[in-house]
Amino acid sequence: MKSPKTGSSWGWLFLIWPLLAWSGESTLRGTGDLGVIIERGSGRILIVNTSSNSIVQRVDGLGDLSHASVVFSRDQRYAYVFGRDGGLSKVDILQGTLEKHIKQSGNSIGGAISQDGRLIAVANYEPGGLKVFSADTLEQVADIPAVYDGDKLSKVVGIADLPGSRFIYSLFDADQIWIADIHDAKTPQVEKFVGVGRAPYDGLVTPDGRYYLAGLFGEDGIALLDTWQPRRGVRRILANYGQGEQKLPVYKMPHLRGWAVAGQRIYLPAVGRHEVLVAEMPSAKEVARIAVRGQPVFVVARPDGRQVWVNFAFPDNGFVQVIDTLTNQIIQTLEPGKAILHLEFTPRGEAVWVSARDDNKVVIYDTANFAKLAELPAENPSGIFFTARAHRIGF
Amino acid sequence: MKSPKTGSSWGWLFLIWPLLAWSGESTLRGTGDLGVIIERGSGRILIVNTSSNSIVQRVDGLGDLSHASVVFSRDQRYAYVFGRDGGLSKVDILQGTLEKHIKQSGNSIGGAISQDGRLIAVANYEPGGLKVFSADTLEQVADIPAVYDGDKLSKVVGIADLPGSRFIYSLFDADQIWIADIHDAKTPQVEKFVGVGRAPYDGLVTPDGRYYLAGLFGEDGIALLDTWQPRRGVRRILANYGQGEQKLPVYKMPHLRGWAVAGQRIYLPAVGRHEVLVAEMPSAKEVARIAVRGQPVFVVARPDGRQVWVNFAFPDNGFVQVIDTLTNQIIQTLEPGKAILHLEFTPRGEAVWVSARDDNKVVIYDTANFAKLAELPAENPSGIFFTARAHRIGF
Repeated sequence: MKSPKTGSSWGWLFLIWPLLAWSGESTLRGTGDLGVIIERGSGRILIVNTSSNSIVQRVDGLGDLSHASVVFSRDQRYAYVFGRDGGLSKVDILQGTLEKHIKQSGNSIGGAISQDGRLIAVANYEPGGLKVFSADTLEQVADIPAVYDGDKLSKVVGIADLPGSRFIYSLFDADQIWIADIHDAKTPQVEKFVGVGRAPYDGLVTPDGRYYLAGLFGEDGIALLDTWQPRRGVRRILANYGQGEQKLPVYKMPHLRGWAVAGQRIYLPAVGRHEVLVAEMPSAKEVARIAVRGQPVFVVARPDGRQVWVNFAFPDNGFVQVIDTLTNQIIQTLEPGKAILHLEFTPRGEAVWVSARDDNKVVIYDTANFAKLAELPAENPSGIFFTARAHRIGF
Repeated sequence: MKSPKTGSSWGWLFLIWPLLAWSGESTLRGTGDLGVIIERGSGRILIVNTSSNSIVQRVDGLGDLSHASVVFSRDQRYAYVFGRDGGLSKVDILQGTLEKHIKQSGNSIGGAISQDGRLIAVANYEPGGLKVFSADTLEQVADIPAVYDGDKLSKVVGIADLPGSRFIYSLFDADQIWIADIHDAKTPQVEKFVGVGRAPYDGLVTPDGRYYLAGLFGEDGIALLDTWQPRRGVRRILANYGQGEQKLPVYKMPHLRGWAVAGQRIYLPAVGRHEVLVAEMPSAKEVARIAVRGQPVFVVARPDGRQVWVNFAFPDNGFVQVIDTLTNQIIQTLEPGKAILHLEFTPRGEAVWVSARDDNKVVIYDTANFAKLAELPAENPSGIFFTARAHRIGF
């Protein structure tokens, strides 16, 4: 396109317009293959592309992102980032802009997005409770303090979405599980399950949205609620799950959110042991133990369930191991870099992205042959989140 | 773009530019909540938005779309539409443009996209075989005629993707199942399973990508292949599945692609009977039969598996019934309109879209309370496909 050399004073505008138009065009793209990587130390996220294995852009100013997590809008255009400092950010991942940032509490541990995509819920430590926001504006629409024993407030952990504008979460200090129904935000309905076990510290919902499992810090075993039949109440499963009779030094509590559900089996990290446990669902009967390199932290299934990938606590946090779920054998041991914090599979599982915090890089592997596909520079990367999560239950 | 004639005439360009820029801006949006509806008679598709329950635009010129199906690129920007007349179209659903249209055979029955999104495979009746195209350019990269008995060519049906650039499909005339590995397009590797049963007419892969099931037209039962253990070969399951001893008039062969997998159970249409069968996987042992309104065609699970929705062959094709999978009871009977052809759930299942061909409309329901959310005008609508399919295995 030629620029005019003479004539009216419109000329400079004409020069500018193509740039403006281009800036729009440059972001005209699908959002199904995008994702977000947390740069833990710098309050920054990377927007990445899983088709080209590349970084698209960086977005700054999100606050304290240690232990941050992310959910996506149902159109997959916006990432909601939950910071440890109570910050809640809405990022436009197409334009690479921080749309809005609020400080909604003093300390928080993650959040969830409702089934219809209209509500964002945040689990708060300080003040203990659930806050719910409009996904559109980030205006607060509900506040549900986690009150117990009269006037005490409990830390809230292990939040996940359930069908129908509902959220399920655990009260660490109160030994309770709550289901909040925000269908009418002005009068939220809360169903409470008490005495679920000592100090639930994390929780997850199975991929079908049916079972909620809460790990217990204060005793062995797992609290299980069948949300299709809540009146049956919470029952204890895997009674020996935890540190067991002989207390073991635990370097890092495993993330339940990282548990793997492959077919009818659930793969979970043994607390304090160099083992991955295998249990049948829904009975949760233990069927196998697999010896692994170190204390497992994340135990994640490839989307087709054929492989389970495991990372470890210090001092084995430079390793990643791969279990073949058909044989329950370890078929690969990788050393992607120093301090492996997180793993995320591409939506259909052909590749996996691994963050190596102390090597300032993210490493991408082909899951079929374990070939290294790419390394991307990132400053102390931690969590990796792809937009396909928008379409999943329990994230 | 026209070139300017005189210096002073820049004004009109300035007026035009905002429109050009806006036209870019108008399509700057996420693609996670988009979808495509086939307008069966008119060679046209509707691009729709599942957040606003609305039609975004129409795209014309796709040829014969009776029995058409759709897959999506991994970035969810492009829809690949497989026409009955052998047409293969690539549609940019952000811009609403027909990017490319080729006639790749005389008669085809559907296609699939590879795990990495690079290959499009089409199952052809005439000439019988598999053709594989670059997803980017639609250039043909492989041609695998379905040769049997020397020089005969079989119709190919029931195609699905498997991990690792592989496609699985059935040869209707040859009683075979083939797995084609297109990792190296110049020398595709084909694994053949012969004598799988008389006349496989459709097939599906379970959501984990592990089991391939082919319905048999020529005899009772289902052919099952465990693709994780292919050397174990194809075995026959549900031996009584089909028309049974007393042959029944079948008004429309049920679509296997519409089978529902809910938890460890599979819900499938009984051929020729007013029943939905329930079988446990992976044993495929029949555990229940549910009496329904008519001969079921599609039996589809809500993404969380709690509900299974069923439509029917003539003369009951104005009804839709909903089964609660916890109790296996019918909890709702709806009459959305005349000639219900297809159902598609939103990715997390809060709504379902239903096409009523002879009422020229698509009806949208809330799956929690069965309230009608919207009706959209569409000319003889058939298949409905949402972009979340891009992230799934076996579609």
